[in-house]
Amino acid sequence: MIMNYAIGIDLGGSSIKAVTATPAGEALSRHNIEFDPDKNMEWAEKIRALVQQLQQERGGPAGSIGVSAPGLAAADGRSIACMPERLQGLEGLDWTKFLGAPKMVPVLNDAHAALLGEAWVGAARGFENVIMLTLGTGVGGAAMVDGRLLRGHIGRAGHLGHASLDPDGPPDCAGTPGSLEVAIGNCTIQDRSGGRFHTTPHLIAAHLKGDAEASAIWLKSVKALAAAICSFINILDPEAVIVGGGIARAGAALFGPLQRFLERMEWRPGGHRARILPAQLGELAGAFGAAHNSLLCK
Amino acid sequence: MIMNYAIGIDLGGSSIKAVTATPAGEALSRHNIEFDPDKNMEWAEKIRALVQQLQQERGGPAGSIGVSAPGLAAADGRSIACMPERLQGLEGLDWTKFLGAPKMVPVLNDAHAALLGEAWVGAARGFENVIMLTLGTGVGGAAMVDGRLLRGHIGRAGHLGHASLDPDGPPDCAGTPGSLEVAIGNCTIQDRSGGRFHTTPHLIAAHLKGDAEASAIWLKSVKALAAAICSFINILDPEAVIVGGGIARAGAALFGPLQRFLERMEWRPGGHRARILPAQLGELAGAFGAAHNSLLCK
Amino acid sequence: MIMNYAIGIDLGGSSIKAVTATPAGEALSRHNIEFDPDKNMEWAEKIRALVQQLQQERGGPAGSIGVSAPGLAAADGRSIACMPERLQGLEGLDWTKFLGAPKMVPVLNDAHAALLGEAWVGAARGFENVIMLTLGTGVGGAAMVDGRLLRGHIGRAGHLGHASLDPDGPPDCAGTPGSLEVAIGNCTIQDRSGGRFHTTPHLIAAHLKGDAEASAIWLKSVKALAAAICSFINILDPEAVIVGGGIARAGAALFGPLQRFLERMEWRPGGHRARILPAQLGELAGAFGAAHNSLLCK
Amino acid sequence: MIMNYAIGIDLGGSSIKAVTATPAGEALSRHNIEFDPDKNMEWAEKIRALVQQLQQERGGPAGSIGVSAPGLAAADGRSIACMPERLQGLEGLDWTKFLGAPKMVPVLNDAHAALLGEAWVGAARGFENVIMLTLGTGVGGAAMVDGRLLRGHIGRAGHLGHASLDPDGPPDCAGTPGSLEVAIGNCTIQDRSGGRFHTTPHLIAAHLKGDAEASAIWLKSVKALAAAICSFINILDPEAVIVGGGIARAGAALFGPLQRFLERMEWRPGGHRARILPAQLGELAGAFGAAHNSLLCK
Repeated sequence: MIMNYAIGIDLGGSSIKAVTATPAGEALSRHNIEFDPDKNMEWAEKIRALVQQLQQERGGPAGSIGVSAPGLAAADGRSIACMPERLQGLEGLDWTKFLGAPKMVPVLNDAHAALLGEAWVGAARGFENVIMLTLGTGVGGAAMVDGRLLRGHIGRAGHLGHASLDPDGPPDCAGTPGSLEVAIGNCTIQDRSGGRFHTTPHLIAAHLKGDAEASAIWLKSVKALAAAICSFINILDPEAVIVGGGIARAGAALFGPLQRFLERMEWRPGGHRARILPAQLGELAGAFGAAHNSLLCK
Repeated sequence: MIMNYAIGIDLGGSSIKAVTATPAGEALSRHNIEFDPDKNMEWAEKIRALVQQLQQERGGPAGSIGVSAPGLAAADGRSIACMPERLQGLEGLDWTKFLGAPKMVPVLNDAHAALLGEAWVGAARGFENVIMLTLGTGVGGAAMVDGRLLRGHIGRAGHLGHASLDPDGPPDCAGTPGSLEVAIGNCTIQDRSGGRFHTTPHLIAAHLKGDAEASAIWLKSVKALAAAICSFINILDPEAVIVGGGIARAGAALFGPLQRFLERMEWRPGGHRARILPAQLGELAGAFGAAHNSLLCK
Repeated sequence: MIMNYAIGIDLGGSSIKAVTATPAGEALSRHNIEFDPDKNMEWAEKIRALVQQLQQERGGPAGSIGVSAPGLAAADGRSIACMPERLQGLEGLDWTKFLGAPKMVPVLNDAHAALLGEAWVGAARGFENVIMLTLGTGVGGAAMVDGRLLRGHIGRAGHLGHASLDPDGPPDCAGTPGSLEVAIGNCTIQDRSGGRFHTTPHLIAAHLKGDAEASAIWLKSVKALAAAICSFINILDPEAVIVGGGIARAGAALFGPLQRFLERMEWRPGGHRARILPAQLGELAGAFGAAHNSLLCK
Repeated sequence: MIMNYAIGIDLGGSSIKAVTATPAGEALSRHNIEFDPDKNMEWAEKIRALVQQLQQERGGPAGSIGVSAPGLAAADGRSIACMPERLQGLEGLDWTKFLGAPKMVPVLNDAHAALLGEAWVGAARGFENVIMLTLGTGVGGAAMVDGRLLRGHIGRAGHLGHASLDPDGPPDCAGTPGSLEVAIGNCTIQDRSGGRFHTTPHLIAAHLKGDAEASAIWLKSVKALAAAICSFINILDPEAVIVGGGIARAGAALFGPLQRFLERMEWRPGGHRARILPAQLGELAGAFGAAHNSLLCK
């Protein structure tokens, strides 16, 4: 008799992350497969093949399968309803049909999935009200309210990277002027540094060496992040704020000044303060979240 | 036989608003009583007397009583748990005991109550995901998610006026730098106008007469409001945004440019746009919300 | 016997302006000739032919000839010493030799020439301390101190358009962050309007029709201009500020709000205020300045 | 036979600095006398007594006497014409009469005097076009153009501290919004640090210890200074920029990041760059300038 297990698939821009896990959250296997985004729906075929392969390896069908992908998930959770420009074919694809699964394959927005993953087996475990920020090329976000994922009216809730910090600033990809994503996302590192830095790790390395220009740029970005986190605390009142993504790997170079700025900015009624915690699952958070979501799906 | 009815009480800084209403939301009476905030707990005695008087007038005890007040409501809903500086005696006051009520008297934060009121019998009726902004001396806010009030971990959720729009800006009363409240609240009108205007209606009147300086100040504030609303849409994904408070009485002078700015700033996936609606209940919104909250309380 | 007269030539990006004038400043003729900037030094040949033609028409050689052109004039006034990228062949060209003139042909920076022209026969006449701003694609500037043109150490003085109004802003063509040119020059109109407006006159027309977004953009730019003029007043202490260029043709739509903002911002010790005056010579200012400069040259 | 010598007096807010010097600029004596600004014109009596004492000590009358003081100097150089609020009695005082001097006692604005002093025997020696910034409680400034002090129309020129870097910023004491003085002067250190720091040296000390909040505040101020210096270079085209005042004593903690920011911001046509130099005369610069000014006075 085979063990019951779930498969979680997280579709990214040029790679697929996957996990198999027990209902208790123990990871049985982890996978990272690249694909060519210019080849028509290569990602879809690779996911179908991967799901078959994983079930063969496990010796029997998965108890449930979940998918995470960029874009807004449909209200019925069967597809991504809105995904402009990239990954042609994803919008409207019914994953239950596509994978020929006996049970519904629920689909999540990727940032939502990452928070669900961290809430299941990572840094967000045990919190009923918690938000997550993923600092990478862009800035992803998600929120959990009273133990439930915050989806909103059309599945757009939790886009914390698209909070404005400067109404006169340049618009980001969603049109939000001077957003948190503009202030700290890798996508603007060249603009923020006048072309000098091409990646945030290079900027932070120069900052740590005492380069005044780098320090000014980096600390301005961290201050913006702190101000945004204050906003999120005042709006959503989470018990904890999980910070992940490539930029969060800077560790103390990020969390040190971030805590410093929060000392001054955070509203702390009755002395209460939100906890700022690094994410724990790295790039597999979305796959774990997709797996957990499939287990929750009746 | 007397009709079942609820009493809603909304305690403000220097006045008490109250309504009696049927369970269906029909208002039976409306009340506005001033008190002297410098007299020790005069507000409390006036509320107790008002409740007695209303029940005498109705010919029998209310089916339920609800209270709305500034500050953060306790998790058990029996009191305001945190209310610094103003209204000595409010913090920790158990309203069920104080009013000698046979049934629990639930207590709400005043901005939360205003949204509950508008959702019951005002502009927010029929929306499951909706937020409300109250533009007055400060900027109040509240959010409803999937039909439930968003409270958060310590009852602080929904403080939309304390969203930062400028990390380098001056701190507001909650310490948030350059917040929406700083950008448009009446409390900063003198600062924003270099001492020239003392109230927002005067500023708007000058703007409507073609005064360039007034236009620059007012439109900058409305642009900030638009950017903040974009943030709230991206974070909470409401179907509608209710805008109330004294400043919202400007009507087209506010809503016209606000819609203009949103045309450019709002993220509208699949053409979806959030509705921007004026509040309908005016200064009685909180009292209606308190009444409704008491009806929902088992 | 022919009348003594001077020729003034002003070389622009795609056209040549010229005047002939008496030593007293009376214009004898005005000329505007286009050239193809992509044809190798066509501008130079057209200027040489124009000078010959004008002298034939006048019936005898000019008493003096002066040239105005973009770039920094050499210290000896015989050439443009520094002119990157455009108008190949201009840098280092000795105009006295090139035109075969019997007397030195002095060369001026074009913005410097425009102020000299206005000081000779235009709006700046009679002022010993006066500055000029030319609001067009870029923002040109020049200053006169105690009756003499302010040149500075390498001929760069007076570049008022490259004064920073935002240290964190985007660099302009000179590298100055968030400069006056960025704030109001036509070169940034698309950026400032999110792509909506392509020319400043269109922006101003929409503003005058009550378009809130246009008003916000335009009044923000005028406020930036006012702040910059305050800076120039505090730095150079001119008796008058001459404002010219295509954008200044907006008249009251510019000067009205500009005066409004200056009421609040300008430092007025002892009640003294600088006069803000529209330029009078239009696109011929530089040619007049070049002619006058040749008359001043021994 | 006694040596010819000049006396230079520099009146400050609560102390009088003085030097006696030979016409070649050799200092014979240096003096620093405190006075009580609340005692009616005590400063004037102390200066009169000091001048008498110095002449007795020297064994004969000075060849010339010069005075430097806050406020705008009159066009005839005999008095301070405009000095609001402080030092009652200074405005309009004719120093030649007051000191009973046989020769005119010329009067200079204090920042103008400091630059004249540095140009005579300090860091600005040998430069024809040079500006000076004094970073202290406020930010003072002065400019020399072609070897002559830039006075402007009413003696206000050179107020470099009152250049705007933020049109929406708070007004400084001259009404200039978001000026350089607001950005780096000691008068705003508490505002800039949310009340945490009371002096700039404390801020810089924390920055040097790696305090992220202090670094963010300090580097933002230095960046603003760099942007302002860019503006001054583009407007006045000096060969050198002298930076003095108490804040400049920070040395490398100021000049290091300042040069860093200028690498990116400064316009350097033909590779030319302005020299940034620390002042050399400290708090005696104004007294030296006053002495030199008296020697230049026929």
